[in-house]
Amino acid sequence: MKLTDIYWHLRSDIAKIEKELEVTIDAKHPILKKASSHLLKAGGKRIRPVFVLLAAKFGEYDIEKIKQVAVPLELIHMASLVHDDVIDDADLRRGKKTIKSKWDNRVAMYTGDFIFARAIEMATNCDKPEVHQILSDAMVEMCIGEVEQIRDQYNWNQNFRIYLRRIKRKTALLIAVSCRLGALAAGAPRNVQLSLYRYGYNVGMAFQITDDILDFIATEKELGKPAGSDLQQGNVTLPALYSMKQNQELSAYILTMINSENSEKVVMSEIIEMIKESGGVDYSFEISDRYLNKAFKELEKLPDIPAKDSFYQIAKYIGTRKY
Amino acid sequence: MKLTDIYWHLRSDIAKIEKELEVTIDAKHPILKKASSHLLKAGGKRIRPVFVLLAAKFGEYDIEKIKQVAVPLELIHMASLVHDDVIDDADLRRGKKTIKSKWDNRVAMYTGDFIFARAIEMATNCDKPEVHQILSDAMVEMCIGEVEQIRDQYNWNQNFRIYLRRIKRKTALLIAVSCRLGALAAGAPRNVQLSLYRYGYNVGMAFQITDDILDFIATEKELGKPAGSDLQQGNVTLPALYSMKQNQELSAYILTMINSENSEKVVMSEIIEMIKESGGVDYSFEISDRYLNKAFKELEKLPDIPAKDSFYQIAKYIGTRKY
Repeated sequence: MKLTDIYWHLRSDIAKIEKELEVTIDAKHPILKKASSHLLKAGGKRIRPVFVLLAAKFGEYDIEKIKQVAVPLELIHMASLVHDDVIDDADLRRGKKTIKSKWDNRVAMYTGDFIFARAIEMATNCDKPEVHQILSDAMVEMCIGEVEQIRDQYNWNQNFRIYLRRIKRKTALLIAVSCRLGALAAGAPRNVQLSLYRYGYNVGMAFQITDDILDFIATEKELGKPAGSDLQQGNVTLPALYSMKQNQELSAYILTMINSENSEKVVMSEIIEMIKESGGVDYSFEISDRYLNKAFKELEKLPDIPAKDSFYQIAKYIGTRKY
Repeated sequence: MKLTDIYWHLRSDIAKIEKELEVTIDAKHPILKKASSHLLKAGGKRIRPVFVLLAAKFGEYDIEKIKQVAVPLELIHMASLVHDDVIDDADLRRGKKTIKSKWDNRVAMYTGDFIFARAIEMATNCDKPEVHQILSDAMVEMCIGEVEQIRDQYNWNQNFRIYLRRIKRKTALLIAVSCRLGALAAGAPRNVQLSLYRYGYNVGMAFQITDDILDFIATEKELGKPAGSDLQQGNVTLPALYSMKQNQELSAYILTMINSENSEKVVMSEIIEMIKESGGVDYSFEISDRYLNKAFKELEKLPDIPAKDSFYQIAKYIGTRKY
């Protein structure tokens, strides 16, 4: 089953959000216009808006109101990716050139700033001050997450707690907030909002851990960038962290490879093999599953409406996705 | 009279804010730590915190509360300068190397993001939701201003309205908000808050226009960067705009010079001379004075306390400052 099959019934509302994203980041400035449009066309799963829509089904669903929340959430996510690619010096994302690679770091900086500004601008239109507060907290956490990522880059000795806190800030919180804000904007009861928040947090953690696993085990074609990119860019993720702690030799090997000039694919494939052999991938799947189980448990507390099944399917999908 | 003489009586509270700035942007990440500290040491007039403190004198002045507002305002300003220098490709600010020049655009991007995040983080600690809303609006405007600056760069045909709107977003609004938030945080009456906001807006406009004039008429030593830097970086300001509209020859001359490879100081000094001769500097001083007079009028509405005189002195200083 594909992710889009799960929310097939939302397709017309997702199209509305897609249109709104397009209108919102349209700019008169020629490079901004091109860069933003390049970013939109590169696509993405639009998983955050989908979570907003599904969560809103637990209250009074009005797409015109809900999209005022869904769009800024996707914009914050997009802006963070543009800046992330500068930090990671990444040339490809989803098989397309990144803005920093198609243009340069300067254009990537201001395109990210622009999209971020549009997100805050749109969020201030929302009439519920609580929405505003939760969104701005999420933005802060995202920014801190970005800075933590820089801080932790090439730090091969970080413990699991640091990794988990970083992916919480970078990914899980924005998904948790998407689930909560959809419910809040639609006036769903507070206990529903909080269950959805916890569901989103746990799904988000599992989602990022799976992403970090796939970076090692998926093919270049599936990833839209070379396998092992994270490690190459100095981003130390759970599979590598675990395996390095298990296997001191691997640790030394990775350091040598990363620091040498000719860190080509052949070598990366060896490192990937060693990470798998040392159990880093299996361990990470285990941790991901633990988060998914917590997400499933949160869903049990929710009223039985069709959206609940979609939330369930998405969590299940994340546990089995290949790319 | 120097600017610091005007707020000499605030020096111990300004020292507290300086200390707080230092603590707030301290980072464990080695480059972030160095970059932030470089930025702090480069100094600045700290005019936004000063406005906050002075405005708070119209209510219940409590430095511990007030600094929660003053610090984020200075941080937002600092973050915007770091990103601005990337946009302008500027190597010097206040005689010191910019972060993008001492390191690179990437470090400047994330240092700016980091300081910005710290500002939002600190602002969310404030217990008055109105403060929060006003600050986040100001941040949006600053971001849009940054993007407008890029859009308008090298656009030699913009009209005065576009210039004025840009400096409003880039400078005047944050100063207006500083004045208002100081009063608001100290619980001063609403009419006082609004008068101070309008005072700040008008003073901010005059301040930026004067800055733009000085870029042409001050010496390199006074400016801490070469005269004519704005024009060199494609930032079209009021003196140049006015003179180019008066003198088509100058217009063509500037375009040739900016587009040629050897746009050295000798040529810039000629351009500056032509701008002065065409009346661009005189005209800009006139416009600046108009804003200052509006600022003085707003002050008349305020109760007679010593802070009012400081506000008056600052406005007067802006009208006569040399650098």
